[in-house]
Amino acid sequence: MASKIEIESAFRDLQNEIIAALEQTDGVGIFKRDEWERDGGGGGITAIIENGAVIEKGGVNFSAVFGTLSKEASLNLGVGADSFYATGVSIVLHPHNPFVPIIHMNIRYFETENEQYWFGGGIDLTPHYVDESDARYFHEKLKLACDRYHPNYYSEFKTWADNYFYLPHRNETRGVGGIFFDRLEGQKRHTSKNELFQFVLEVGKSFAPIYTHFMEKYKDHAFTNAHKKWQLLRRGRYVEFNLLYDRGTRFGLETGGRTESILMSLPATANWEYDFKPLPDSPEAATLNQLKKGITRV
Amino acid sequence: MASKIEIESAFRDLQNEIIAALEQTDGVGIFKRDEWERDGGGGGITAIIENGAVIEKGGVNFSAVFGTLSKEASLNLGVGADSFYATGVSIVLHPHNPFVPIIHMNIRYFETENEQYWFGGGIDLTPHYVDESDARYFHEKLKLACDRYHPNYYSEFKTWADNYFYLPHRNETRGVGGIFFDRLEGQKRHTSKNELFQFVLEVGKSFAPIYTHFMEKYKDHAFTNAHKKWQLLRRGRYVEFNLLYDRGTRFGLETGGRTESILMSLPATANWEYDFKPLPDSPEAATLNQLKKGITRV
Repeated sequence: MASKIEIESAFRDLQNEIIAALEQTDGVGIFKRDEWERDGGGGGITAIIENGAVIEKGGVNFSAVFGTLSKEASLNLGVGADSFYATGVSIVLHPHNPFVPIIHMNIRYFETENEQYWFGGGIDLTPHYVDESDARYFHEKLKLACDRYHPNYYSEFKTWADNYFYLPHRNETRGVGGIFFDRLEGQKRHTSKNELFQFVLEVGKSFAPIYTHFMEKYKDHAFTNAHKKWQLLRRGRYVEFNLLYDRGTRFGLETGGRTESILMSLPATANWEYDFKPLPDSPEAATLNQLKKGITRV
Repeated sequence: MASKIEIESAFRDLQNEIIAALEQTDGVGIFKRDEWERDGGGGGITAIIENGAVIEKGGVNFSAVFGTLSKEASLNLGVGADSFYATGVSIVLHPHNPFVPIIHMNIRYFETENEQYWFGGGIDLTPHYVDESDARYFHEKLKLACDRYHPNYYSEFKTWADNYFYLPHRNETRGVGGIFFDRLEGQKRHTSKNELFQFVLEVGKSFAPIYTHFMEKYKDHAFTNAHKKWQLLRRGRYVEFNLLYDRGTRFGLETGGRTESILMSLPATANWEYDFKPLPDSPEAATLNQLKKGITRV
């Protein structure tokens, strides 16, 4: 059965593999690795890229932390445990070119000293301009990864992502969705811990080929000031989601997580304009119309 | 005794007075007024300035809303009431010049059908570069307004502001503080409703002279790209505060408030840079060192 040492080691390797793939495709940007320790136990490696050729700002973070669980945290998690161990890989990338999408991926493993555990994670794509065939391509890759493990995973986790990556105050999805899942536990899912570990790792390994595909496809795509303006406004929405709703961000900041690692998800620059409405029949209006729950199911 | 009609009318007038003063000092920018209605009852006037000569983006908003209180809301507020009425004025202004500070002001009145009521509000200043004599000037004006009503108000509400306008994940105050107060009720404060109304109005009326002073003083102050860069990073912090911690923002968005009116507080542009540290002994480092609870008590 997959042990935490095995899982942690696989996550560490995944971080390095993804960094290597992104650096190769970017061609210019080099990730800066910051190793940090957590006061209560464990630590991580935050790897940040700024001003690459394709990626403007982003992070590929690994962490493995452990320590005591407060009574409140134990109650909130419903685990009745005094201590925990958690490891994960978290990625957000903001490209320069408005036609390269923003992407996010996270996989994580959590266990307590009383032998409870679960896996969580997700991957979602936020194009500044929605292209339907790209969205289908993205979802097809995720469905392939899911289908290897369970015929219902894609459908279930796709709906979960639609509901999670959602800005209620805008009635907008963050992007074209993807998959999201949390608290996957072997027995409850009629499968083994090892099988779930393999699934989560498969999701993680699907990241680099998917994103480098979009980097290659759009890195030299021509764009205007109007495209750039729209990108900065869409990044504003991304900031709203991350600070208002993202559970990992909020939980991390509230529990004394490392601020700079958590907020690597924020773009280099974001804009807001009062009540901005795209022109009717513009590509911007078309994108806005598409950002609804239920977008792109394959 | 001050009635809701009287309070609402004074708040409406205050909005217009402040807009007139800001337009006069800005010289170029004209506020655009959007009148809106709330589905459940009432509405407001959102007045937005974009691309003035001094103010880059901001709002001076008025609202007066009423309707049913959900059981949950009634319980959270501890009022045991089925319906409410609320009116207020809310301001946030982001200037172009990094030496003109960001400012926020809010005054509000709330009542229920079972004769409970309270006033709340506050005003705080967020300079991109802290100047101690400016911070003292600001606090002295607030102390003057407070002292007319109670010798303890300034001291109490100044501490409240220190604790409220605070980013725990950064261990930074938002700026040089100011005053903050909530749920001021006559009997509990050994005063009258009318007296509290006059106090809150005094706070509101102190806004225009204070801010136009800073606009005049710094609108033509020379600045470099480095100053502008720092301003955009400080605005990133402002966005973090408003989306992560500001109660009005969160409550407004969660209860179906008008998104564009609430998020007028966000700047036109904000930046983030991973783990940015100002050079030792730089003006930026000096500002950062000053942003601690307890800053500038007069």
